[in-house]
Amino acid sequence: MAVVLSVSGSPSSRSRSTGLLRHVDAMLSARGHTVLALDVRELPAEALFGTDPGHPELARAAGLFELADAVVIATPVYKAAYSGLLKCLLDHLPQHALAGKTVLPLATGGSTAHVLAIDYALRPVLSSMGAFHIVQGWFVLDRCITLDERAGVTVDGAADAGLREVVDRFCTALGGRLLSAAPADAR
Amino acid sequence: MAVVLSVSGSPSSRSRSTGLLRHVDAMLSARGHTVLALDVRELPAEALFGTDPGHPELARAAGLFELADAVVIATPVYKAAYSGLLKCLLDHLPQHALAGKTVLPLATGGSTAHVLAIDYALRPVLSSMGAFHIVQGWFVLDRCITLDERAGVTVDGAADAGLREVVDRFCTALGGRLLSAAPADAR
Amino acid sequence: MAVVLSVSGSPSSRSRSTGLLRHVDAMLSARGHTVLALDVRELPAEALFGTDPGHPELARAAGLFELADAVVIATPVYKAAYSGLLKCLLDHLPQHALAGKTVLPLATGGSTAHVLAIDYALRPVLSSMGAFHIVQGWFVLDRCITLDERAGVTVDGAADAGLREVVDRFCTALGGRLLSAAPADAR
Amino acid sequence: MAVVLSVSGSPSSRSRSTGLLRHVDAMLSARGHTVLALDVRELPAEALFGTDPGHPELARAAGLFELADAVVIATPVYKAAYSGLLKCLLDHLPQHALAGKTVLPLATGGSTAHVLAIDYALRPVLSSMGAFHIVQGWFVLDRCITLDERAGVTVDGAADAGLREVVDRFCTALGGRLLSAAPADAR
Repeated sequence: MAVVLSVSGSPSSRSRSTGLLRHVDAMLSARGHTVLALDVRELPAEALFGTDPGHPELARAAGLFELADAVVIATPVYKAAYSGLLKCLLDHLPQHALAGKTVLPLATGGSTAHVLAIDYALRPVLSSMGAFHIVQGWFVLDRCITLDERAGVTVDGAADAGLREVVDRFCTALGGRLLSAAPADAR
Repeated sequence: MAVVLSVSGSPSSRSRSTGLLRHVDAMLSARGHTVLALDVRELPAEALFGTDPGHPELARAAGLFELADAVVIATPVYKAAYSGLLKCLLDHLPQHALAGKTVLPLATGGSTAHVLAIDYALRPVLSSMGAFHIVQGWFVLDRCITLDERAGVTVDGAADAGLREVVDRFCTALGGRLLSAAPADAR
Repeated sequence: MAVVLSVSGSPSSRSRSTGLLRHVDAMLSARGHTVLALDVRELPAEALFGTDPGHPELARAAGLFELADAVVIATPVYKAAYSGLLKCLLDHLPQHALAGKTVLPLATGGSTAHVLAIDYALRPVLSSMGAFHIVQGWFVLDRCITLDERAGVTVDGAADAGLREVVDRFCTALGGRLLSAAPADAR
Repeated sequence: MAVVLSVSGSPSSRSRSTGLLRHVDAMLSARGHTVLALDVRELPAEALFGTDPGHPELARAAGLFELADAVVIATPVYKAAYSGLLKCLLDHLPQHALAGKTVLPLATGGSTAHVLAIDYALRPVLSSMGAFHIVQGWFVLDRCITLDERAGVTVDGAADAGLREVVDRFCTALGGRLLSAAPADAR
């Protein structure tokens, strides 16, 4: 199975996009993948803010990207694009930090008017980082995500069905990738 | 092996982007893939500019997309985006005409200032059509492509090396896709 | 007052985006502007399709752009972007055909999920053509536009209010432009 | 004359994009405009990375935007888009913080391949913030900008000529705006 890095780009401590990510993490774990979580907001501000990519916390984050076979990235949509916080992390990573990776982009927002932000804003950035395969992303309306401290995260019917479909396709893509990368005699 | 549809979006009869495509077709054939060519400019104008998706020539074009495992799309960059001619064809296809397909986007232009047109303009359109995997594209400067009636198409050193790399990755992606789609017992 | 060119990029003969444009034309005429209409679908297909920018109908269209102080452009959203038909016309115009012009982009579509197509797809193309000022555009849902042969075009309440606001801002922008371009002693 | 806010989005202390901005500030001051400078990197990290838009330093930054008639925004191009740092500031501002403003976007980068990042990445974000007029931006190659502690900033010939042209157009746009906003009897 694969190692999947799950990156949350929300600055908020009670974030719907992070909640959505935890929900996806559970789907991926249930299929046998190893999920590693990285919340950009938990990185030290002075590291993100600075210009030293050798800062130990940034080096550790870059190491997680290197280690992973695949990356799930979730961001709230602010001002018609991804969060600045997420971009700060991406800015610190090597130019081709996504080379060879399968990537699933997710976004949340208050209105369906923001749906295209995944394809027009986030995807070109991920593509510039050399991603091998950015699968179809998924946008979920804030009001379709319920955060509950005890019950955890719930995603509304249709939004959840769509989400399961993109996670399926992400897993298929990941499987094809691992198969084609495997030495022929190991198949 | 796979069936690859090779689509040229250039309005010109002596087009560098079409030349580039023929060069890629040869690479794909040499690897055993079956290549079908579709030049948008050879479709009847009244069909492309009309509103009848049932026009026999458009239905035939849509059939080629359906048949193909993968699609290579080449366009000149005009006014910071893909050609209108290419978009006219795409507009006539079903919304998810690229579902399940592996897609390689290629572009040509007079200046490197147009490079991002692939990722910011063309890729979101292909993504909206449900493409399974849009691999890293490649932009080639017009002056790196030589068209010669007898010698055929030549692409300059560095541009050609980069092109071979994206074609390699396209074939890898296609291979992984076919493997993962194959019934388990056939592997 | 100003000369405004009103360009419809819809391939359809009973188009909501063209209807919307006629509605805006009436607002502009009521304010004393001279409105010239250009429906791309009425240009001869072989001209749009060909590669000869000297074709008389294309030369006439280019002349209208040159003559106009301002341009309103309306397009349906297809496959997450403007129509191929509209782009075919733009491809034939000189690179800086919008230099010095004030431009109002309008779009129509079946879902609010397409709203960002104006800013992420259409605006960069208009910007590459040297537009002096592309004002805030407006997206109207198909179901908010009623076409009636006798009663003409009606736009639903909230959509119409928003439309009037962008037309106001367009007129203000146009007024400021004409003022600042006027010789000082003529003010 | 106008109050112009000059915003630098570079995380670096010896930044070419900030240098470019200082060069533009001097042009604007020479024409009698009042220039206020805001370097995002000088804002406290914990404010930028937090979620409290009421933080005094963020409130002060928002106040500068409110005060200004016009805004110049300069960013390095990282990963095919604006800097994360710049976006962090924009994320904290009110949704329509640019309403009524004239905006000049500037970018710097190592290769002309990044030119379209202004129009495809930065401009849609500024547009979503309600900017009245985003004038044609300008991209300058890093190697065309020389920073010297004593001599100040120098921009190479052709790049500088283009820059002066966009600053001219920015001032014209600003002038037209102020004229059209002035009460009729004050003209």
